[in-house]
Amino acid sequence: MQGIQINKIDDNFYRSLEINLPKPDLADNEILVQVHYGGLNYADLMMCNGSYPHPKGYPLQAGIEFSGIIVKCGSEVQKLSVGDRVAGFSENAGAFSEFLSVPQDSVTKLIEEVSLEDGAAYYVQTTTAFHLLNTIGKVQANDIVLIHAIGGGVGLNLTQLAKHAGATVVGTVGTSGKEKRPLECGADLVLDRTKHDFTNEIQQKFGKTPVRLLIDSTGAEILNDSFDLMQNLGHVVSYGEASGKPYDNLWSQLVLRSLTFSRLHIGHINHQSEEWTHAQITIQELIKNGELKLFIEHIFLLNDFDLAYHALDSRKVSGKILLKLK
Amino acid sequence: MQGIQINKIDDNFYRSLEINLPKPDLADNEILVQVHYGGLNYADLMMCNGSYPHPKGYPLQAGIEFSGIIVKCGSEVQKLSVGDRVAGFSENAGAFSEFLSVPQDSVTKLIEEVSLEDGAAYYVQTTTAFHLLNTIGKVQANDIVLIHAIGGGVGLNLTQLAKHAGATVVGTVGTSGKEKRPLECGADLVLDRTKHDFTNEIQQKFGKTPVRLLIDSTGAEILNDSFDLMQNLGHVVSYGEASGKPYDNLWSQLVLRSLTFSRLHIGHINHQSEEWTHAQITIQELIKNGELKLFIEHIFLLNDFDLAYHALDSRKVSGKILLKLK
Repeated sequence: MQGIQINKIDDNFYRSLEINLPKPDLADNEILVQVHYGGLNYADLMMCNGSYPHPKGYPLQAGIEFSGIIVKCGSEVQKLSVGDRVAGFSENAGAFSEFLSVPQDSVTKLIEEVSLEDGAAYYVQTTTAFHLLNTIGKVQANDIVLIHAIGGGVGLNLTQLAKHAGATVVGTVGTSGKEKRPLECGADLVLDRTKHDFTNEIQQKFGKTPVRLLIDSTGAEILNDSFDLMQNLGHVVSYGEASGKPYDNLWSQLVLRSLTFSRLHIGHINHQSEEWTHAQITIQELIKNGELKLFIEHIFLLNDFDLAYHALDSRKVSGKILLKLK
Repeated sequence: MQGIQINKIDDNFYRSLEINLPKPDLADNEILVQVHYGGLNYADLMMCNGSYPHPKGYPLQAGIEFSGIIVKCGSEVQKLSVGDRVAGFSENAGAFSEFLSVPQDSVTKLIEEVSLEDGAAYYVQTTTAFHLLNTIGKVQANDIVLIHAIGGGVGLNLTQLAKHAGATVVGTVGTSGKEKRPLECGADLVLDRTKHDFTNEIQQKFGKTPVRLLIDSTGAEILNDSFDLMQNLGHVVSYGEASGKPYDNLWSQLVLRSLTFSRLHIGHINHQSEEWTHAQITIQELIKNGELKLFIEHIFLLNDFDLAYHALDSRKVSGKILLKLK
């Protein structure tokens, strides 16, 4: 079968399309999926340069996010059947291949109204956004929520989900022009950090410490400056450090106003938990009802995988990039 | 009127009983309380040596926790009346005096079944324990809760409230013999840290990462070692650093298993909030029904205030120390 393989770790992100990969084995608790779409994430770039901490060893079959149709079930699989349309997350990668075997808990059945394209587009980003806001951040209608990198994939999902919860949404972007889409998604204020002192602007508009919930993927100085905006008992939820690790003064910042700080990677959430199931059902309902818009920017054919990776690496694309495998 | 005064900051904890203090003024939103009991807290020792961050300036009238009867109300006071029995927390101290004026939101009316002694004994410690566990930690029946300094005042309240919520309670003490009382309060396992490697013992009994909620007032190495026991998505709630500040690796510890860390000082909770009111009602009901036991160790007369402070400073007393002012 065909599939993308990362042959070695280097800064040139060397990867290739292999055409003679063996069809994967199937364990008793696994399903075999014929992959239709793969979703690209920054984690895929991190796997190329060896900075992604979870999957181990090279050569590595690439891809963690996918949608497709089940073609075979292991003997212990009970809740899923051949022919089911599913989307999923593969902890051990391998999703950018024609066939993929994964544990049954790694996938969610798609309801009729959610297409396979949407499945591969929502699974990682929307699920992450949902858990950041709800499972961890417990967003409420009267919250002011601050979202950094609000113009990116997770940011746009966060915006829509927070507005759906009735919150006031304030965001920042690091690239001029990226303000537009979050505003279309209903954000109340979006500031370009290259032009504005965001703490100052937010304080002028909303008061000295208005933010109850901060969702951050930037880390470093941007996160550090943001503590000044937090209410007593406010909650900071972090899911990345694109600008670098936060300063060592994390504890000192929390003591000042009795804050809560969470660091979330969705791979740590139990996929069999109530919270996980609730998130999947709610997200698919929102997509079905047109209450959550997914921004699919490009769909590349498998043969053009290298263009897809480069598009993601350019950081100019804010919508989702998919690979079409079938 | 009579009252305790801290005249200057020094390591000898110099304080005196003043007999000619002026009766306090009363602002429109304040009540004047004839104080019956004062509750001693470590914060009172910290005020003597200048390490308590909140009240400002010396000489300082001492005392933050009290119970008593309202003898006068400011013109804007609506929810309280002369004659009401109340317990409270005075952000600006002054509670160990015959009369004290505080904003109306600083006190809670005591129900008939809760004595003035109990009022001064529960207000700071039980309210702190309640918010650590419920408002912040959201304790659940299937949680394993780890409590350090479980033999202290807040620890014994935490034990009873966590057992009341149905949780399994595991605790540690730093002084031999302090295991007894938390076990009487229903704790499932209490380890003396001077004799046991607590992480090892807890892992042997409950598995590698059993703890969902950790309540800590020790900081430093004890807190740092405890991270090894946490479940994915577990919650660490800190309310003090008796053994020193936590290490600078807080962020690194949280990233490993997607943990949440909160630092709580109850002075940061809005006393007009739903959470505050809910806590006060629930605690008084538990006391009334005999479901929460308060351990009052000593009641000293005002003239013996210095014995009271020294008893607290000895750290040998685990129950509450009260000062009787009337």
